Amino acid sequence: MTLLPLPCSKIQDFSLPNSTWNSEMLQLYKHYNSLCEVETEGGEKEGQWKKIPGYNRLLKYATGGVYLSKIIQSKARLFTRNINEPGAGFEYVLFVNREEQKCVGIWQCGHLLEGPPGHVHGGAIATMIDTVTGCVASLTGAVMTANLNINYRSPIQLGTTVVIETVVEKIEGRKKFILCKVTSPDGTKLHTDATALFLSIDINKLLLGR
Amino acid sequence: MTLLPLPCSKIQDFSLPNSTWNSEMLQLYKHYNSLCEVETEGGEKEGQWKKIPGYNRLLKYATGGVYLSKIIQSKARLFTRNINEPGAGFEYVLFVNREEQKCVGIWQCGHLLEGPPGHVHGGAIATMIDTVTGCVASLTGAVMTANLNINYRSPIQLGTTVVIETVVEKIEGRKKFILCKVTSPDGTKLHTDATALFLSIDINKLLLGR
Repeated sequence: MTLLPLPCSKIQDFSLPNSTWNSEMLQLYKHYNSLCEVETEGGEKEGQWKKIPGYNRLLKYATGGVYLSKIIQSKARLFTRNINEPGAGFEYVLFVNREEQKCVGIWQCGHLLEGPPGHVHGGAIATMIDTVTGCVASLTGAVMTANLNINYRSPIQLGTTVVIETVVEKIEGRKKFILCKVTSPDGTKLHTDATALFLSIDINKLLLGR
Repeated sequence: MTLLPLPCSKIQDFSLPNSTWNSEMLQLYKHYNSLCEVETEGGEKEGQWKKIPGYNRLLKYATGGVYLSKIIQSKARLFTRNINEPGAGFEYVLFVNREEQKCVGIWQCGHLLEGPPGHVHGGAIATMIDTVTGCVASLTGAVMTANLNINYRSPIQLGTTVVIETVVEKIEGRKKFILCKVTSPDGTKLHTDATALFLSIDINKLLLGR
């Protein structure tokens, strides 16, 4: 039984540029793309980074899963990709560097993410952090969030772009400790910093109930 | 200049029951409603709890605000109320008890909040926690989130109802320390616990830039 996502060519990759991406998003996207793996003429691979495709749901993951109703299962969508209108919610792309155990997320925060007037909701910032730290933590297998400790230092205005850099600090048994910071595109302004703890899990247990 | 929200009778209160609310949501709603203030025949008020109306945006808050474009400003929606389809995102209602400095949130987690397969995204859980802790912290004035420290203990299935109980632990100057737990409707299963730190702010500074 196949339980893990099986991307196929028909599925839309939402982490590709669209007309709502601002110039900072595009510039950062091009920068990290330029650092990505390419095959040289000699057949060797260069570039340590890799772009992660962004889908809006988990696919074909639980044939026979008993954990929720078929209706909910068929309609479920990833929280970060649940808004259909481009640019209105989260626009983002993730790049990973396996060798250095890093993940970078480039995020543009749309107008539907409001918390304090004109600014991004603290929960939306936590969502971005959970996503990028979860990405780096899952480089070596399936994980679940066990702890997020987030310091909100400077609010993020709606419509702006932020960069989220994460790195695996250490691994102890099932525990993966992640460091994270959220900055302005040029890195000069620290919006948020965080630590995250993830636990390795058996994905089958989650899917089939515990 | 009026900067704070001015609810008017035309604005929809999204925290009232709708056809998507399950029996647990309705039961909890009725329970806390029964504890709410009512005027007795003698003109005295009984009941310590009060329901907080739930809007999907902040109203008329920044005439002349310079912090973001007029287009974004006019289209901005509260992160927790940005899905139009009832039952698909967050369904919730908040009740506060000023005397005991408590806030309770009753939440039904729709199918658009997925993180791990079939379960609520860690960021969506953080969003619910930020909302309820922020509500109790703001009983005595405007605040911004400074820290969230969240322990994820047991995953929440899509479609289920949770209760989020918060209380002000202590206040030190501008700092308000909040305790929070997320449980199953009957309180027997602890899904998540958290602490939150909020800072009192001058709302005008936030609106007019800093």
